Amino acid sequence: MIIQLNPKITQAEKDAIVNAVKGLEYKTTSVKTQVGSYLVGIGKKDFDIRQLGNLSGIVDIHRVSDDYKLVSRKWKVGRTHIDLGDDVVIGDGSLSIMAGPCSIENESQVQLTIDHLVKNGVRIMRGGVFKPRSSPYAFRGLGVEGLKMWYTQARKAGIKIITEVMQVSQIAEMYDYVDVFQVGARNTQNFNLLDELGRVDRAVMIKRGISGTIEELLYSAEYVFSAGNEKLMLCERGIRTYEKASRNTMDVNAIPILKSKTHLPVIADPSHGIGIREFVEPVALASIMAGADGVIYETHQKPEEAASDGQQTLDFEESARLIERMKKIFELKESF
Amino acid sequence: MIIQLNPKITQAEKDAIVNAVKGLEYKTTSVKTQVGSYLVGIGKKDFDIRQLGNLSGIVDIHRVSDDYKLVSRKWKVGRTHIDLGDDVVIGDGSLSIMAGPCSIENESQVQLTIDHLVKNGVRIMRGGVFKPRSSPYAFRGLGVEGLKMWYTQARKAGIKIITEVMQVSQIAEMYDYVDVFQVGARNTQNFNLLDELGRVDRAVMIKRGISGTIEELLYSAEYVFSAGNEKLMLCERGIRTYEKASRNTMDVNAIPILKSKTHLPVIADPSHGIGIREFVEPVALASIMAGADGVIYETHQKPEEAASDGQQTLDFEESARLIERMKKIFELKESF
Amino acid sequence: MIIQLNPKITQAEKDAIVNAVKGLEYKTTSVKTQVGSYLVGIGKKDFDIRQLGNLSGIVDIHRVSDDYKLVSRKWKVGRTHIDLGDDVVIGDGSLSIMAGPCSIENESQVQLTIDHLVKNGVRIMRGGVFKPRSSPYAFRGLGVEGLKMWYTQARKAGIKIITEVMQVSQIAEMYDYVDVFQVGARNTQNFNLLDELGRVDRAVMIKRGISGTIEELLYSAEYVFSAGNEKLMLCERGIRTYEKASRNTMDVNAIPILKSKTHLPVIADPSHGIGIREFVEPVALASIMAGADGVIYETHQKPEEAASDGQQTLDFEESARLIERMKKIFELKESF
Amino acid sequence: MIIQLNPKITQAEKDAIVNAVKGLEYKTTSVKTQVGSYLVGIGKKDFDIRQLGNLSGIVDIHRVSDDYKLVSRKWKVGRTHIDLGDDVVIGDGSLSIMAGPCSIENESQVQLTIDHLVKNGVRIMRGGVFKPRSSPYAFRGLGVEGLKMWYTQARKAGIKIITEVMQVSQIAEMYDYVDVFQVGARNTQNFNLLDELGRVDRAVMIKRGISGTIEELLYSAEYVFSAGNEKLMLCERGIRTYEKASRNTMDVNAIPILKSKTHLPVIADPSHGIGIREFVEPVALASIMAGADGVIYETHQKPEEAASDGQQTLDFEESARLIERMKKIFELKESF
Repeated sequence: MIIQLNPKITQAEKDAIVNAVKGLEYKTTSVKTQVGSYLVGIGKKDFDIRQLGNLSGIVDIHRVSDDYKLVSRKWKVGRTHIDLGDDVVIGDGSLSIMAGPCSIENESQVQLTIDHLVKNGVRIMRGGVFKPRSSPYAFRGLGVEGLKMWYTQARKAGIKIITEVMQVSQIAEMYDYVDVFQVGARNTQNFNLLDELGRVDRAVMIKRGISGTIEELLYSAEYVFSAGNEKLMLCERGIRTYEKASRNTMDVNAIPILKSKTHLPVIADPSHGIGIREFVEPVALASIMAGADGVIYETHQKPEEAASDGQQTLDFEESARLIERMKKIFELKESF
Repeated sequence: MIIQLNPKITQAEKDAIVNAVKGLEYKTTSVKTQVGSYLVGIGKKDFDIRQLGNLSGIVDIHRVSDDYKLVSRKWKVGRTHIDLGDDVVIGDGSLSIMAGPCSIENESQVQLTIDHLVKNGVRIMRGGVFKPRSSPYAFRGLGVEGLKMWYTQARKAGIKIITEVMQVSQIAEMYDYVDVFQVGARNTQNFNLLDELGRVDRAVMIKRGISGTIEELLYSAEYVFSAGNEKLMLCERGIRTYEKASRNTMDVNAIPILKSKTHLPVIADPSHGIGIREFVEPVALASIMAGADGVIYETHQKPEEAASDGQQTLDFEESARLIERMKKIFELKESF
Repeated sequence: MIIQLNPKITQAEKDAIVNAVKGLEYKTTSVKTQVGSYLVGIGKKDFDIRQLGNLSGIVDIHRVSDDYKLVSRKWKVGRTHIDLGDDVVIGDGSLSIMAGPCSIENESQVQLTIDHLVKNGVRIMRGGVFKPRSSPYAFRGLGVEGLKMWYTQARKAGIKIITEVMQVSQIAEMYDYVDVFQVGARNTQNFNLLDELGRVDRAVMIKRGISGTIEELLYSAEYVFSAGNEKLMLCERGIRTYEKASRNTMDVNAIPILKSKTHLPVIADPSHGIGIREFVEPVALASIMAGADGVIYETHQKPEEAASDGQQTLDFEESARLIERMKKIFELKESF
Repeated sequence: MIIQLNPKITQAEKDAIVNAVKGLEYKTTSVKTQVGSYLVGIGKKDFDIRQLGNLSGIVDIHRVSDDYKLVSRKWKVGRTHIDLGDDVVIGDGSLSIMAGPCSIENESQVQLTIDHLVKNGVRIMRGGVFKPRSSPYAFRGLGVEGLKMWYTQARKAGIKIITEVMQVSQIAEMYDYVDVFQVGARNTQNFNLLDELGRVDRAVMIKRGISGTIEELLYSAEYVFSAGNEKLMLCERGIRTYEKASRNTMDVNAIPILKSKTHLPVIADPSHGIGIREFVEPVALASIMAGADGVIYETHQKPEEAASDGQQTLDFEESARLIERMKKIFELKESF
C-alpha cells in the first residue's frame, strides 16, 4: 500500500500511522521525495482501507498489488511530467526527441550537432563522455572536461543534455552540467548508483538491462523513486536474444506494456535497439506507434568517422528526415 | 548464381549451360516453377558473367552471394505480387488485412465473422481447422468438414481463406477450399511439407519458427520456391525469449530486415506476437510503420468464449477500430 | 487422473467407469497401448478416489496433477525399460551408448564404424539417412536404400539401429530396418508424426526442440504414449540461446529435471549439445554425472571428411577413450 | 601482442620498445601488475617478432590474436595459481570448495556453518553481507559490521572468506576482512568496480553476467588484470534463457570453453546455476566432470529459514554428502 502523507504531518500523527500499518503485519518504509512524503507498506494481508483513512495526516491511500509500488499506475494514474526548464518537458503528451553522437569527440563535432538540432527543432542532445566498453583497451570517452565543453556550447543554444553516468563518484562532478542522468544497460541493476541518483535533484533515464525483464526495470525505477527522485523515465533499448541479424532485438512490445504498468515516461532507443543504420528509421517510427513518449537516437556529421557506433548512426540528412516523419506519425497517433 | 532460362530452351542448349556452370565448379539445381525456369548454381569461385551470358537459351544471369538464392532481392529487385483472384492481391503496395478467429468453431461464428469482415472491407479471413496443440488432450480443430462449411460461406461473400496445413497428407484434401496455405511456427522447418507445398498451385504463407532465425525463414522459403511455387509470403509472429511479460516477443526488427533481403511480401501477426489483447493494436500499428505488407490478427464475436487464444483475440468493435487506424497509418507511411 | 483398466474388462464395466468419471466433470480419453489399457481423465475438480476405486474393471487409479499424464512419474514411479532384443536394454540401470556418423555415407564407412563399435562393446549405432537441412541445396541423405545397406551390415554384427524419421510416409518404408525411430529437434512438435509413431511397435526417441521447453518435450512424449507406444525415451541435445561460443547450449540441467518428472529414459547428445569436437568428451561425462541413462554422439573414421557435422565428430581414437571414461564415470556414479 | 618487460628495465629501454611497437601501428598500454610489467599492443598488422626481440629490456613476446590479451592462454599456457595463504590455493590442480549461506545472518549461523565446514575439510566460506536485490524493499544484508563478526570467527577456524563487493567505495572498508572479492552477475560489466579491484592486492572472482557472453567475461577479467591484479578467477553461474523449469540455465559448456581460452581458474556455482535444491548435487558433479577447478554452493543449517535463496540451499547433511562425492569424482577425473 502507498499512503501519501500531509506535508505538515506531526511526528505523533506519523507514528500513529506507522503503528497502525505495522498492526496489519505490513513492513513500512518512509519515503520522502522532492515532491512528497509517503509511507510504503509491504505485506500480504487484506485490510479495510477505511480503518487507516480515518487517521489524521493522511492525504490518500492506495492498494498496490504490484511488487513495485511508487512507480505503479495502480497508485498514480496521471502521467509523470518531467520539466527540464526552458519549456522542455518530457511526458506531457508531446513527443520528446533526443539526438546526438554516441561519443562526444571535440568542439567542432558538438557545434555541428547543435546546429543540426536547433535547425530541426530538437531540444535535447545525447552524447557520451564516460563510455562503458567491453574491452579495457577501447576509447573510454573525454570525461568531465568533455562534458564541460559540451555544456558551454549547449547552453548557448538552449539545448538540454542527457548523458550516461557510470558510477556514484561521477554524480557530483557531472551534476552542474547535466539535465538528465542516463543509467546505461550495464548498470540497470547497479543498485548503489540508483540509490544515489535518488538523492539528486536531476532527471534520470534508466535503460532496460541487456537482458533485463520489464519487471526488473520497474524495480530499478522503484529504487530511484523510493530514494527520493520522482523525475524519472524509462528507456527500451533492445534485448539480447539468439537472433544475430540485428545487434539487439528492439522489444517494441515493452513499450505498451510499460505504459500500462507505470506512470513514468517511456523512451525508445532504436539506434541500440536494432543497431543497423538503414533500419533505425522504421524502428523509430514503429516505437512511436507502439506508444513511446520519445525517441533517443544517434546522429553524427560523418557516421563513418564516428569514434564509436558508426554503423548505427544517422547522418544529418537522415536525421532531419526522421525528425519530420516522427512528428507526422506522432500527430496522427495522437488524433486517435 | 541464378540463371533464368528461356521458356523455349532446347535440351541441347540447357545441357550446354549446365556443363558450362559445372565447369566453374558450381553445383547446379534445375528449378521449374509455375512462372519460370531457372538454373541455380551453388559454388564459391569467382567467374566472368559474360562467359555464360553468350550462351543461347539464357534470359538473365545474376550473382547472388546469399546462401538462399531465389527468394533473395539480390536477384529479383521487384516485389512479388500474389494474386488471389477477385482483386485480392498481396504485396502490390496495398495493405493486406487478414482477420478471423483462432479456431473455426461453427457456422454461426463463421457467418458473424464474415459479416464483420465484409462490413469493414476486409477480404481475407483466417481461422484454424487443424490446430497444433502442445497437449494431445486439447481441442484439435474441426478438420476438413469445418473447412468445407467455412469455404461455402466465405465464397458467397467474396472472402478468401487462409488456414494452417500441418502435414503432407492434408494438402490434397484441403486444396479445393483454401486460398493461402499457412505453415505454422512449429512446421517452419518441416522440410517435407515445404517441398510438397512447392508443388501446389496455391499461395503459401510461412510463419517464422518459434525461435527461428531470419535466415532460417528465408531458407524455408527457398524450399518452397525451388520446388516450384513462387506464390509465397513470410510472417513474423514473435520469437521465444526470456521475457515472459508478453506471450512471445514480436520481433518488429525482422520486418525491415526481411524487406531488405527478400522480394517476398512480409505479414505481421501481432496476436501471437505479443499475445495480449489490449496490446494487439499498438503492435499492429508499429508493424505497419516498420514496413509490413499486411497484418493477420485474431478476432471473435465473443473473445472470452473462443475455443482457443481468447486472451489475445479482439472483439469486433476493437477489430473495426484497428482496421480504420491501420489504414490511416498505412496511408501516411506510403506518403513518405 | 489415470485409471489403469483390467485387460479383461467388459464394455459394460468400462462404460460405467467412463460415466462415473464424466460425472466428476472430467474429460476422458481411452488409451490402449501395446502394454495396457488406460482411461485418462482431464479435469480440475477434487474427488474422492475411493468412489471410483469400488467400480469393477479397475486395476489402479492415480491422481496426476501435471498436465502431461501417462509420462509422469506421479503415476508410474518405476523406470521404463526399453528392450531392443538381443540383451540390448535402455533405461534398466545400465549405461546406453549410441555412436556413429552424422550421415550414412557408404558401405565402407558403415563397416568401419561397426567394427569400431563392436571392438568397444557398443551395441547401438546412430546415423542419418534422411537429413533435415536448412538449405534445399544441401546433401539430404542416402534415403531408404542407404538404410537397407546399413541394416544388412549391422544385423550381422548384432548392432541395433537408431535413425531419424522426418515424416509420416517414411515410417512404413523404414519400419523393417530400424530399432529406434528418432524424432529430430525440428520435429519435436510435429504432432502428426508423433501420433503415427504412437501406433508403431518400435522404440522412439524424441529430441527436445531447438528452443523447446522441458514441458513441451513431455507433452510431445504424451502424444506418442497416448497413441499407444510406451517404448519411449527423451533426448537433451542443447537449446538455442544468445551464446554463440558453442553451437547450442547443452542444457545439462534438463537431465535431472526430466528424471524427476518422468519415468522415461533420458539420453544426452553432447555432439549437438556443444557442437565442438574437443569439448564433446567433458560434456558427455558431465551429462552422465547429471543422471543421463545414455549418451548418443557422433564418430567417424575421418571426421574432417564427413559429409556433415565434421566439426563436432570424434575420430575412433577419441571415441574409444570416451567410451572407456564414460563407463568408469557411470560406475562411480552408480555406487553413490 | 604482449611484451613481458624486464623488471629492471630503464626508462630509455622502455621508450625504445614503445616506439618500436608504435612504429608497427600498434596502440600500446603499459600494464604493471603485482607480479610483472607488460606492454600490451593492440593492432592488426602482421610483424616480424624478431625485430622486437632484439631490443633490450624484453623478457618475452607473444602474439595473441584474441581481443582479450593478458587473460588468454595464447600468452600464458601455464595455469594461474591463487594462493590465499595457510595452504589454501586455488587453481593448482586441487578441487576448491567454497560453501556457506546466501546471506550472513548472525553469529550463531556463522559458527554453525564454520563447524560444518571444518568437519568436512572445506577451507573457504561464502556468504553475503551486501546483497544486490531487485526490490529496494528487500533485505540488503548486514553490511561491514556483519563482515567483521564473520571474519573474527572464520580466522579462528582457519577459514578463508569470499564475499560480494557491490561498489568502489566498499572495497576499502571490506579490504581487511576479505580473502576473495566476488563480483556479482549484475556487476560483471561494472567497469569502474573492475578497474578498482585491479588496484587491490586481494584475489577476485568475477561471475559471468546474467546474460553475459563468455567473451564478455574474459574482457571483464582483462580489466582487472590490466589494472594490476593477476589473482583472478572466473565463475559460471547460469545464464538467462527462455526455459523457466530451472532458475537459470547452468551453462556447463562454458566450463571447458573457458578452460581452453584462459589460464585463470574456473569455478562453478550450481546453486544459482539451476536454483533448485534437489538438483544442486547433480549439477555440481557435472560441473567437475566438465573441468571446473572448484565449486561454490549455498548451505545453511535450516534452508527453509534462510534469509534468502532457501529454495536452492542445501542442509548440512546434503552438503556433507555432496563434498564427499565431489572429492571422489574429482579424483577419478584427475586420473584420466
